[in-house]
Amino acid sequence: MQVTEVLFDLFVLFAAARVLGGLFDAIRQPAVIGELLAGVLVGPHLLAIVAGPEQEMVVLDVIAELGIIILLFTVGLETHLSELRRVGLPALLVGTTGVALPFLGGAALMLALRHPASESLFIAAALVATSVGVTARVFRDLGALGTTAAKVVLGAAVVDDVLAITVLALVAGLTRGNVSEAALAVTLIEEVAFLAFVVFAGPRLVRRLYDFAHLPIVPGSPFALAVLLTLGLAALSGVIGLASIIGAFLAGLIFELRRDEIANQVEPVYEFLVPFFFAVTGTRLDPSVFAEPRIVGIALLVTGVAVVTKILAGYLGARRFGRWTASTIGVAMVPRAEVGLIVAAFGLNLGVISRDLYGVVLVMTVVTTLLTPPVLGAMLRRQPIEAPGE
Amino acid sequence: MQVTEVLFDLFVLFAAARVLGGLFDAIRQPAVIGELLAGVLVGPHLLAIVAGPEQEMVVLDVIAELGIIILLFTVGLETHLSELRRVGLPALLVGTTGVALPFLGGAALMLALRHPASESLFIAAALVATSVGVTARVFRDLGALGTTAAKVVLGAAVVDDVLAITVLALVAGLTRGNVSEAALAVTLIEEVAFLAFVVFAGPRLVRRLYDFAHLPIVPGSPFALAVLLTLGLAALSGVIGLASIIGAFLAGLIFELRRDEIANQVEPVYEFLVPFFFAVTGTRLDPSVFAEPRIVGIALLVTGVAVVTKILAGYLGARRFGRWTASTIGVAMVPRAEVGLIVAAFGLNLGVISRDLYGVVLVMTVVTTLLTPPVLGAMLRRQPIEAPGE
Repeated sequence: MQVTEVLFDLFVLFAAARVLGGLFDAIRQPAVIGELLAGVLVGPHLLAIVAGPEQEMVVLDVIAELGIIILLFTVGLETHLSELRRVGLPALLVGTTGVALPFLGGAALMLALRHPASESLFIAAALVATSVGVTARVFRDLGALGTTAAKVVLGAAVVDDVLAITVLALVAGLTRGNVSEAALAVTLIEEVAFLAFVVFAGPRLVRRLYDFAHLPIVPGSPFALAVLLTLGLAALSGVIGLASIIGAFLAGLIFELRRDEIANQVEPVYEFLVPFFFAVTGTRLDPSVFAEPRIVGIALLVTGVAVVTKILAGYLGARRFGRWTASTIGVAMVPRAEVGLIVAAFGLNLGVISRDLYGVVLVMTVVTTLLTPPVLGAMLRRQPIEAPGE
Repeated sequence: MQVTEVLFDLFVLFAAARVLGGLFDAIRQPAVIGELLAGVLVGPHLLAIVAGPEQEMVVLDVIAELGIIILLFTVGLETHLSELRRVGLPALLVGTTGVALPFLGGAALMLALRHPASESLFIAAALVATSVGVTARVFRDLGALGTTAAKVVLGAAVVDDVLAITVLALVAGLTRGNVSEAALAVTLIEEVAFLAFVVFAGPRLVRRLYDFAHLPIVPGSPFALAVLLTLGLAALSGVIGLASIIGAFLAGLIFELRRDEIANQVEPVYEFLVPFFFAVTGTRLDPSVFAEPRIVGIALLVTGVAVVTKILAGYLGARRFGRWTASTIGVAMVPRAEVGLIVAAFGLNLGVISRDLYGVVLVMTVVTTLLTPPVLGAMLRRQPIEAPGE
């Protein structure tokens, strides 16, 4: 039966993620590296234990998505809205330059290598979006969610996501020759209005909802309300074109009701579901891309641009916090994952980018996803002066 | 995006399940009735809010499966192996007669109505398997998992599942004209050996595994170990042909390590995932089957046989516990769900049973699933003499 096969996959992924995660934990590295490698190991490209048909993979994607949603909800719960507001301006700067620089840098590199304009723009767009899940997990594993760096990164990730979606819409429109400024503006306004509404009206709304939930028709469990809010905002974010994890993060951020109790209750759900996200992500990373010499050369150049531009953005946008914090922020913004691959797959389907360049984006994803945790971990452990609470 | 649609479905199912579940809770009925009706309401047959394409439904099935697995793991955790052993004989009796009587009764009815032998045997096979999820949930909602009735039912459900799978294999073999006694015997031996091994060697093995888990390579969280064991035994049960929930129940049963701590930790996971099982089950119940007069007559007869034979089996197998307990056990064994439908769908695909008779099985499923919770709830609340702990 199909369901049995998925259960078996989940068992293998969970077991491998726990063992390799534990191993990395034991050598004082972020467990998330082990979980990612667990997925690479059991996934279709190596041992092929978890390598079901397309439909099985879709199911795993959804369970992985629930995992990352729970992760970002937890991160939101551990972040205070007021603290995030305090770093609003640097976060906006880091988010904006962190979209602009990789896009411009990527386009310049590809054009210099004499690729056609449309292909260059697509590769550039694939370099834009930070995948904040990996970073948030490293911050959390190392107890660093309270640092200024973590807060700027989380704020910047929201800005990043809004802009990345806009860039993708713009590039797709340019390629098809039909950029609708009106439609773009509507999307952007919709997204900003959604964010503003949630951040400003959200906390009060949650309290109201909870008062209402004392009526007999809704079991007044704050935890159920938290689940409802998280699923609702995640789905809504998805509907208006944002990443669902942004909605989940906002849900955690505005849920100010019995925060400690909820944080305790979400912990086992986290322990159950979050490893699936990283292990499933690992199954998508194909190490054989490194075996294609034709790809590796250009891939290393593109990866270099992807890494340097994000670090530079962190440095420029957050230099007021000193060199250590600014460069930590830059490194934390480096991972690219699903969004980059989605953009590249989209370009591949449109016939705008070649299979080789899809491989280039894949290399960039693999390298930035796997290298960030150890580097960021090492930086966080060498944190100078700044107190953990600041 | 597809993942967004699934998130939206999950939001709608969770919201509807909480509201209707709360409503039934408020009128002192088992919340599970509300959760089932929530699924009927938002599902494809009424409001059609959750009515995605086939692939979306498969994803929902897997998440529902995780829910029922967590439910049965929790029930296993709250049941002590020693207590279950104490009711071993009556459980075996209830399980065996509870398979034999519906099968014989169903076959006799269909043959009396002049249906062909193969069709009659298939319908009879569809009446056999109890769906213990609904029952276990009602017992748990009403704090009655400690009663003798609950223990006999849980033991009988294990027996029931082993026999039901055997009956299905037998009937399918007979229909195809190739019963392999050897293969049947191997399956049966495999299943019984699996159960015996888990029940007798399991608790010690878990302790060993935990000692081993203190090594640095596995994070020594008992909760992660419990998740691993549950997924593993659920998948293994599925592989050897048993229902995955039997494996999950066994996992809870043998996990004697820091039981109270694990029970606390699994609670939020339960609150998150279990409602999906009942709501998704509800989306599968099509109320329009009651609108077909041609079906309803024979369906009521078949449903009558399905209900009466299970109650009789409880009565015969457990009469030593007195009339109240014996009839509670009988009623608790009444619900039929996924297995009955799977058998019927299998017969439909083989061309052995007609669409109308598939509808008959569907009516039987809907009626037994929806009627058992209120009846069982009423009986449990009128519990006489017997102390809750006995």
